Amino acid sequence: MTQDFSSDNIASIAPEILAAIAQANAGTAHSYGDDEWTHRLTRLAQDVFECDLAIYPVATGTAANALALAAMTPAHGGVYCHQTAHIEKDECGAPEFFTGGAKLLALPGAGGKITVAGIAPLFGEAMARGIHQVRPSAISISQATEWGTVYARDEIAALAEFGRGKLLHLHMDGARFANALVYQNCTPAQATWQAGVDVLSFGATKNGALAAEAVVFFDLDLAAEFEYRRKRAGQLLSKMRFFSAQLVAYLENELWLRHAAHANRLAQRLAEGLLALGVALTQPVQANEIFPVFPEPLIAALLAEGFGFYRWPPPEGVAGSVVRLVTSWNQTLADVDGMLAAVARNLRAAA
Amino acid sequence: MTQDFSSDNIASIAPEILAAIAQANAGTAHSYGDDEWTHRLTRLAQDVFECDLAIYPVATGTAANALALAAMTPAHGGVYCHQTAHIEKDECGAPEFFTGGAKLLALPGAGGKITVAGIAPLFGEAMARGIHQVRPSAISISQATEWGTVYARDEIAALAEFGRGKLLHLHMDGARFANALVYQNCTPAQATWQAGVDVLSFGATKNGALAAEAVVFFDLDLAAEFEYRRKRAGQLLSKMRFFSAQLVAYLENELWLRHAAHANRLAQRLAEGLLALGVALTQPVQANEIFPVFPEPLIAALLAEGFGFYRWPPPEGVAGSVVRLVTSWNQTLADVDGMLAAVARNLRAAA
Amino acid sequence: MTQDFSSDNIASIAPEILAAIAQANAGTAHSYGDDEWTHRLTRLAQDVFECDLAIYPVATGTAANALALAAMTPAHGGVYCHQTAHIEKDECGAPEFFTGGAKLLALPGAGGKITVAGIAPLFGEAMARGIHQVRPSAISISQATEWGTVYARDEIAALAEFGRGKLLHLHMDGARFANALVYQNCTPAQATWQAGVDVLSFGATKNGALAAEAVVFFDLDLAAEFEYRRKRAGQLLSKMRFFSAQLVAYLENELWLRHAAHANRLAQRLAEGLLALGVALTQPVQANEIFPVFPEPLIAALLAEGFGFYRWPPPEGVAGSVVRLVTSWNQTLADVDGMLAAVARNLRAAA
Amino acid sequence: MTQDFSSDNIASIAPEILAAIAQANAGTAHSYGDDEWTHRLTRLAQDVFECDLAIYPVATGTAANALALAAMTPAHGGVYCHQTAHIEKDECGAPEFFTGGAKLLALPGAGGKITVAGIAPLFGEAMARGIHQVRPSAISISQATEWGTVYARDEIAALAEFGRGKLLHLHMDGARFANALVYQNCTPAQATWQAGVDVLSFGATKNGALAAEAVVFFDLDLAAEFEYRRKRAGQLLSKMRFFSAQLVAYLENELWLRHAAHANRLAQRLAEGLLALGVALTQPVQANEIFPVFPEPLIAALLAEGFGFYRWPPPEGVAGSVVRLVTSWNQTLADVDGMLAAVARNLRAAA
Repeated sequence: MTQDFSSDNIASIAPEILAAIAQANAGTAHSYGDDEWTHRLTRLAQDVFECDLAIYPVATGTAANALALAAMTPAHGGVYCHQTAHIEKDECGAPEFFTGGAKLLALPGAGGKITVAGIAPLFGEAMARGIHQVRPSAISISQATEWGTVYARDEIAALAEFGRGKLLHLHMDGARFANALVYQNCTPAQATWQAGVDVLSFGATKNGALAAEAVVFFDLDLAAEFEYRRKRAGQLLSKMRFFSAQLVAYLENELWLRHAAHANRLAQRLAEGLLALGVALTQPVQANEIFPVFPEPLIAALLAEGFGFYRWPPPEGVAGSVVRLVTSWNQTLADVDGMLAAVARNLRAAA
Repeated sequence: MTQDFSSDNIASIAPEILAAIAQANAGTAHSYGDDEWTHRLTRLAQDVFECDLAIYPVATGTAANALALAAMTPAHGGVYCHQTAHIEKDECGAPEFFTGGAKLLALPGAGGKITVAGIAPLFGEAMARGIHQVRPSAISISQATEWGTVYARDEIAALAEFGRGKLLHLHMDGARFANALVYQNCTPAQATWQAGVDVLSFGATKNGALAAEAVVFFDLDLAAEFEYRRKRAGQLLSKMRFFSAQLVAYLENELWLRHAAHANRLAQRLAEGLLALGVALTQPVQANEIFPVFPEPLIAALLAEGFGFYRWPPPEGVAGSVVRLVTSWNQTLADVDGMLAAVARNLRAAA
Repeated sequence: MTQDFSSDNIASIAPEILAAIAQANAGTAHSYGDDEWTHRLTRLAQDVFECDLAIYPVATGTAANALALAAMTPAHGGVYCHQTAHIEKDECGAPEFFTGGAKLLALPGAGGKITVAGIAPLFGEAMARGIHQVRPSAISISQATEWGTVYARDEIAALAEFGRGKLLHLHMDGARFANALVYQNCTPAQATWQAGVDVLSFGATKNGALAAEAVVFFDLDLAAEFEYRRKRAGQLLSKMRFFSAQLVAYLENELWLRHAAHANRLAQRLAEGLLALGVALTQPVQANEIFPVFPEPLIAALLAEGFGFYRWPPPEGVAGSVVRLVTSWNQTLADVDGMLAAVARNLRAAA
Repeated sequence: MTQDFSSDNIASIAPEILAAIAQANAGTAHSYGDDEWTHRLTRLAQDVFECDLAIYPVATGTAANALALAAMTPAHGGVYCHQTAHIEKDECGAPEFFTGGAKLLALPGAGGKITVAGIAPLFGEAMARGIHQVRPSAISISQATEWGTVYARDEIAALAEFGRGKLLHLHMDGARFANALVYQNCTPAQATWQAGVDVLSFGATKNGALAAEAVVFFDLDLAAEFEYRRKRAGQLLSKMRFFSAQLVAYLENELWLRHAAHANRLAQRLAEGLLALGVALTQPVQANEIFPVFPEPLIAALLAEGFGFYRWPPPEGVAGSVVRLVTSWNQTLADVDGMLAAVARNLRAAA
């Protein structure tokens, strides 16, 4: 039983994924990706996404994002993203580093989403001013967003459409792609390349892997020479089979979707429970993150009881203390109910 | 039984290390290194190296080297290394990337080693010419070298001594540090900081880990803000415990030394067997790599029989075809004897 | 007579400066700065600023800023600056490029100024969140600001004081430093290092030079190895004497101050004239830039008459069309009066 | 009269070029290159090179080279060049910096020249080894070379031909392009794009300008977005007219060719005079640099008499002390004869 709702990256490795590592651990295998698990991963990903694509495992989500962006923007380019985006707020400048100094062009937007309405005037101004500012070269969206919301397919398609003909590629940071997909209730293809996504950072670590993320190119032109990029970034794992095996196990038998569906269900239950207790939520709950407003005494009491979570900067217009609660594949209904009971108990005590 | 002598990175994960991962897989743990395995790793490394130090796990050896160098040299700096060094020949420009464009100053040297005699005139010229060339800022040695030889402690100490007072730090690429250490027959402390090494890339992957390397700082000043560097390089593993656990298992109970000693013994047996068959070796065999001269028909025959190895560019002055044979912790005497028998059989057939 | 108020970089070369170039053009001189004009420049700058300092000429203001910042922040660092700062809006990512990917941390602030009140909470959050975001390493202010205002000495001192002990150096982008200094009515020393400025981008091009900017280090520790940086940035002019000679002529006989005082006076006259005509100014006029609100018909009429100026994004809370008018050393009272007459005529016609 | 043969960058500004600056100094002009001199420069360069092309003035030769290479190679790329190339030995890592960490792949070659015979095996090995080393992306030749020799047109064409279809662009560092062209006795077109050159660093500073170099793109695809690159590199001169005016004056009335022809003639006279005195030359004299072997007493005597020159690392196989003598447009026959007389006198004294 875990009382820790601080993140989904505190979770353990799913048994199926650990078993896959053990299974791949038979005898020798060619290094650097020329192995059967890596080949199988590519075929599997092509099946799952129903298209030709190139998939490159890397060790971290930050590397996946930064490498993806480096393949999409020149060093003199700019990347539109939300002010709260992981690439903007949580990667210590990795995108700037990997791109050789490209600039993140962060903008606000409700629910952690950026829109054509937000980007269009900025893009117009940038092109009008020309070489005095960076050349906008990509749009990066987080799916699910940092506020736990999910872009609808037509919202994505509108961004892709805007970018078309403007040398503006579309990147999706899918650290929680599975959670978003389950919510969207569509196919992986519909959620990505059919909506206009060029490159996807495909995350598995938060959803059950040991350490396995991948850069997925739907636009194969952008993948040209990507293997050089990955190598020089120190992201070409020598014993690649053990990373590919994780991703294979993740995709096989819909493990990824089952995990995400479970985490999302827990989040829904938590959200409903909190609402029933009169707690306000600052964002719609669409994936596995919840951002309630908690009274300070409640925060103190929960932390004192051993619950884990982070305070979060409130969205514009919200007064009060906001916290983030993240559910994950290896939590249980009991974990959620334990949290709800503690909230109820403490709110009652304060009333 | 394996006939593959192409590299030690084709080997599997040692059972002890896989068990450690499984053992670490209990419940939740704080992410990004604030976990008990990572704390334990630091204490353990301090014990093993008998000093205060900072140790930072990363996912690949290329990342370890490039991050280490980035902490040791400014972007306008230069790094002396051997012409065959991994950082020069095998990392696709990662050191240049991570340092922001510092220059590798590659020089020749017998047995894959660089010497004060080789560096001194270059350093003198560089300082005399001043700002028209990069500022030499570090010396990087591979231990064991790319030719399978091992720097003696006084060779290392001489390089460190040369660098002192010249703003020339000493880096050791220890992708095969264990193999070198076993050969040296001294303590880890004697082999590193006591000889003047400032930063060590400490490799475990080739010697039994899934994927675990570490940057070890003996000079703690150089470690200042290193965690920012690692993060922005996409090398801060979110589920760090599983990387630290590998390194803990690697260091505990001298697993690393037993593995290396075994691989070295196999290399010695292979070397002696080849010499007995009249095969010339181009380098002294001191770690787990052998570089014999093989007649072309022998190469063809061995490959046809399913043996695995790479051709290697001959060292200066050597005629004939050179190949590289690498032994590893999970090979057996029978593997080596199988190779020797095949060599003997094919040489006889050709005679 | 010029009707062009679009910028001060459209102006010609001051006769004194062109004469200095011609005068330096006698015979041969050592290249790369080992010449008498460059040595003289250093002594002169030390006199003017009344301190030991290092001064390095470069060809552009963007280079001066980007090189200065690269000497002040690591690649994993961040630089606080105003949202309208030249480094943020007008240098096409040069600071990110020269620093190796450091991040500009742009914040709002009235009159184009940043304040301790604005920075302190951001800094607190950054240090609390640690390595997930860049390490704030510098504060950069523009003097005069992009809104034509001038930081008071105690405003600068407050920023410097805040930075002390926090590894936060203070940079001043002095592209229009002379205009600010004249307004401040204090000594160059008081306006810079005595207020806590560590590094100054000292501009001369906008105020009469052909092309001459300089990076001035008051904190000599930060200047260590700066000459390597300048060289590798392609900013070490081979015939340096002709750049140093410009700066010498600029500083000698207070040419820089006379030019700036003249331009400021013109700006004051223009501002007073516009106010008298009922035109609103969006910013106090303290240097040589004026940001009035012009009715659209007036803008059209002035442009049609051949006047030159740019539209400018309005500051928060201002409705109507804002334009920027810049006065410069080589404009005359007649130029300003011509503009005022045209404004008056067109406003009357519209009334 | 000058006794200084140390470099051609110690020379003054040619009167025609200084006059052009003065002439351009009339009234205001749009900044950043939108001025009549810059437009005229483009047309003039197109005439001179008899083709469509894009030409971008910058302030230094290092910037021209590094920016040119950055437009020709990705950050994970490599550039073949001679071991003595300016980009390799004299630019403090600028190419590595501007390209984001690409690697210079320096090779030896007689007379400072690289050849297809030298590159081909390296390229073959690089492509065979794949992503473990950088992707060779460009060939850079110096014309004239650092040894004062000149590539014949068919030597250039052979390199270009080799690169075709291999993603290997051809760059020419033309810091002394005029001197080479005069020796070649062909048209600028024949010497560059007709021989397969994609991008030329066109130097004027060493041959009479104040500070004016240009990046010339014959392959216009490579020029896409180059203006962003130049801007972010701090090389977009605000008062561009004064740089373009230099280049216009340089190209007009064949000033550049007259200067180069003069310098070359002086070099020939110096070479012939030295040979007549029994002094050995280590290289054929084809442009304006001479590399004689001087006895140590002669070196000492000449330096004592006030002559200026640098010692130079001897080419392979040469014993004795080598010096470099550079002639330039503003030296005279008397200067050369003075040097010859001093050599003769001192050799006699020593005999």
